[in-house]
Amino acid sequence: MKTLVLVSHPQLADSTSQQFLKASLPSEGVTWEHLEDQDEFDVAQEQQQLRQADRIVLQFPLYWYAAPAGLKQWEDTVLTRTFVYGDHRYPLADKELGIVVTTGMPEQAFQRGGAEGLTLDAALAPIAALAHRAKMVWLPTFPIYQFGYLEEPEKLQLVTDYQRYLTQKQPDSLANRQDWFAQRLTGMVDRLPAEQQVTGKLIASVFDQNREHLDQLTDTLAMIKEQEDD
Amino acid sequence: MKTLVLVSHPQLADSTSQQFLKASLPSEGVTWEHLEDQDEFDVAQEQQQLRQADRIVLQFPLYWYAAPAGLKQWEDTVLTRTFVYGDHRYPLADKELGIVVTTGMPEQAFQRGGAEGLTLDAALAPIAALAHRAKMVWLPTFPIYQFGYLEEPEKLQLVTDYQRYLTQKQPDSLANRQDWFAQRLTGMVDRLPAEQQVTGKLIASVFDQNREHLDQLTDTLAMIKEQEDD
Repeated sequence: MKTLVLVSHPQLADSTSQQFLKASLPSEGVTWEHLEDQDEFDVAQEQQQLRQADRIVLQFPLYWYAAPAGLKQWEDTVLTRTFVYGDHRYPLADKELGIVVTTGMPEQAFQRGGAEGLTLDAALAPIAALAHRAKMVWLPTFPIYQFGYLEEPEKLQLVTDYQRYLTQKQPDSLANRQDWFAQRLTGMVDRLPAEQQVTGKLIASVFDQNREHLDQLTDTLAMIKEQEDD
Repeated sequence: MKTLVLVSHPQLADSTSQQFLKASLPSEGVTWEHLEDQDEFDVAQEQQQLRQADRIVLQFPLYWYAAPAGLKQWEDTVLTRTFVYGDHRYPLADKELGIVVTTGMPEQAFQRGGAEGLTLDAALAPIAALAHRAKMVWLPTFPIYQFGYLEEPEKLQLVTDYQRYLTQKQPDSLANRQDWFAQRLTGMVDRLPAEQQVTGKLIASVFDQNREHLDQLTDTLAMIKEQEDD
């Protein structure tokens, strides 16, 4: 799967959250682009890049309940009507669209009666409508609230969650998570030095056994639930 | 009342709707500014202009369910957090915020199940949230659907409706409309050549009589309604 990450931030170098996310990128399968780096968009090239991606992730801080002007400029310039839905051709159809959004306010602010007074979903409705127009698949949003206040364990968790958001098969089910972790583990074992290969393979085999065991338990649980259903 | 109209359009000269609206501006009480004309915003001056206005109208075509990048750039640059709500000062509080938005799609597209799939209110929710944050008064939006298809009588109506949106007291009640038209009429009569002054004053006096008559009828109707209420 090819993932395209389009980052919009007017001062990327000064953003600790964006620098952290950049350092957390998976080693392969991801193309990363900073929109404000480009004085003028090469429309044909940008469109070609979109055509080649399976998952497109827009990543930005929330400024006044929307993406920064840079992303809107990209939308207004690159996403021409002809490209998105002209002549009943939909080159972006069935591609996944995800949003990684950082906010200065905490999660509870984004609800009716909260300090911001609207949900992130409501703030992102214009982008969701665009995805709808392009017949894209809208992924659940990946919000990062108040990055500056995260503790170290939360940041470590964020690295994995972020990598999964970019590269794991959707939906974010137990089975898809397991597959994702199993793939990573195999890749890691292969890169271990020779003297640690045995230990690595042992860990991988235990993971596999646990996984089978978990699958069986999940099946049993599903059967019990079915029998309990009204 | 002082009204500030901030227009965002990347190619203003080519926009027949924006040129029409510009030609329809009331002769006084309105400051008009084209945001994309400015290479860089003079933040202090822009903020000062906002402080002096009673009604602020943002005017733009809807691009991908939002304002063009130029308006977002203005928001991101001019509306600093400190200015809008820093130190618990709210310099924009109680000012009215109106939106004049032109769309390429017809009115019926902007609903659940319509071609666009979301309402204008939902598309403008981020700006409404900003108004809320600034403690401004949100005016009902002034949409212009498919300007290019308007007939001449509709365009004439648009001129008046637009002028009223910019300068008439809100809410858009019968009483406020009457006041607005009465003021305009007086102004027009004063500018007539001497030989037409008598006719002009006659018209104005008939208008006033009708208005009094209408007020009486409205009062009577209100009394009847009150008696009918459960």
